[in-house]
Amino acid sequence: MSFPNPQIKLTVDAVVFGYEAGNISVLLIQRKYDPFKGKWALPGGFVLEEESLEEAVERELREETGVAINYLEQLYTFGGVNRDPRGRVVSVAYFGLIHPDGHTLEASTDAEAAKWFDINDLPQLSFDHSHILDMAIERLKGKITYEPIGFELLDTKFPFSDLEKLYSTLLGRPVDRRNFRKKINSLKILDELDEKISLGAGRPASLFRFNETRYKQLQKEGIIFEI
Amino acid sequence: MSFPNPQIKLTVDAVVFGYEAGNISVLLIQRKYDPFKGKWALPGGFVLEEESLEEAVERELREETGVAINYLEQLYTFGGVNRDPRGRVVSVAYFGLIHPDGHTLEASTDAEAAKWFDINDLPQLSFDHSHILDMAIERLKGKITYEPIGFELLDTKFPFSDLEKLYSTLLGRPVDRRNFRKKINSLKILDELDEKISLGAGRPASLFRFNETRYKQLQKEGIIFEI
Repeated sequence: MSFPNPQIKLTVDAVVFGYEAGNISVLLIQRKYDPFKGKWALPGGFVLEEESLEEAVERELREETGVAINYLEQLYTFGGVNRDPRGRVVSVAYFGLIHPDGHTLEASTDAEAAKWFDINDLPQLSFDHSHILDMAIERLKGKITYEPIGFELLDTKFPFSDLEKLYSTLLGRPVDRRNFRKKINSLKILDELDEKISLGAGRPASLFRFNETRYKQLQKEGIIFEI
Repeated sequence: MSFPNPQIKLTVDAVVFGYEAGNISVLLIQRKYDPFKGKWALPGGFVLEEESLEEAVERELREETGVAINYLEQLYTFGGVNRDPRGRVVSVAYFGLIHPDGHTLEASTDAEAAKWFDINDLPQLSFDHSHILDMAIERLKGKITYEPIGFELLDTKFPFSDLEKLYSTLLGRPVDRRNFRKKINSLKILDELDEKISLGAGRPASLFRFNETRYKQLQKEGIIFEI
């Protein structure tokens, strides 16, 4: 059988979520070239022949936004026949979580600009990127029920209320404070530090740190984490 | 910017699981052409320019095995640089569940033969297909903890013990019969029929049927289903 030659191109796209002060944001770029020149889009681009999909998405993210992430999870592959005006382009979408504070944005190559957008206040997106983003948001909300998310999104040291706020933001509803603390304690996922922080008028609050070993173990076990 | 032209080809592969009499099997084909001529592999092949990924995987499955499935779920996209000796080939793998009884196998096009193999007694597989299959088995085992799997795998009418056996097979351990029945009852997912079946020496057992409406609703909600 001959090696076929359909003109299908392959891209990767990255949905990178950030969390800060009770808001979830997503990293977008402004396109420098047509199609959709000047419009906002997910960072991403064509896969080169000699790189893996993971290498491609990390490279595109670095080039277009200046952000370096060493862990992106595969989300889904979008292969609709008419999703790109240039021809048949199939895109493998990836999904990552970071704390925006630690990353300086710097657009180059195909991106005119790179910017964080609150997921509740998004511009119109290019291609089928709003569909990809919707699926990533669903995945993020689903994940917090079976994985102890947070490590990538919070500061290294944080008061317990930050973790609680993250969950209530992701769930879109308040969490029962007492049950939440009980649940987190039972997972033995946090180490309480000797440091405290002053938050408003109340007593100074203890700072916590994720226990990375324990956290990775729970992630691997895929524990059920009902809040 | 010009439209790039890396020589990356796109394929789809299907991991179709069947369940019968306490055994989980997977549908494989014997390759008619090189590479791996005469070896076993997952059904699949190159995506055509004018078809979606879903259309491609359904077509390949039909052509190579005679099996028609109208629901396949995307599993993962495998894009390692050296996974195909012919060049750079990225494959989008899909995953489906059927009851083998209702399907007659008929190999054609690129397949010399199509056959069910017990997942505990597999031949050597072509390409990285054993890696793809391993991931599909993990997914299947994971799914039963948060979805009421079974609808696609069991007969239309079945004794309760069949469902219990399916779960214990997938989990690889016995299930606590009493708690399992209680859990299933609380989900209101089964309708008990007026028919009975004789199984061995005991009293005839009632037959059940999945309540499709309720089942699809629970699937959509992505319920936590701890057994």
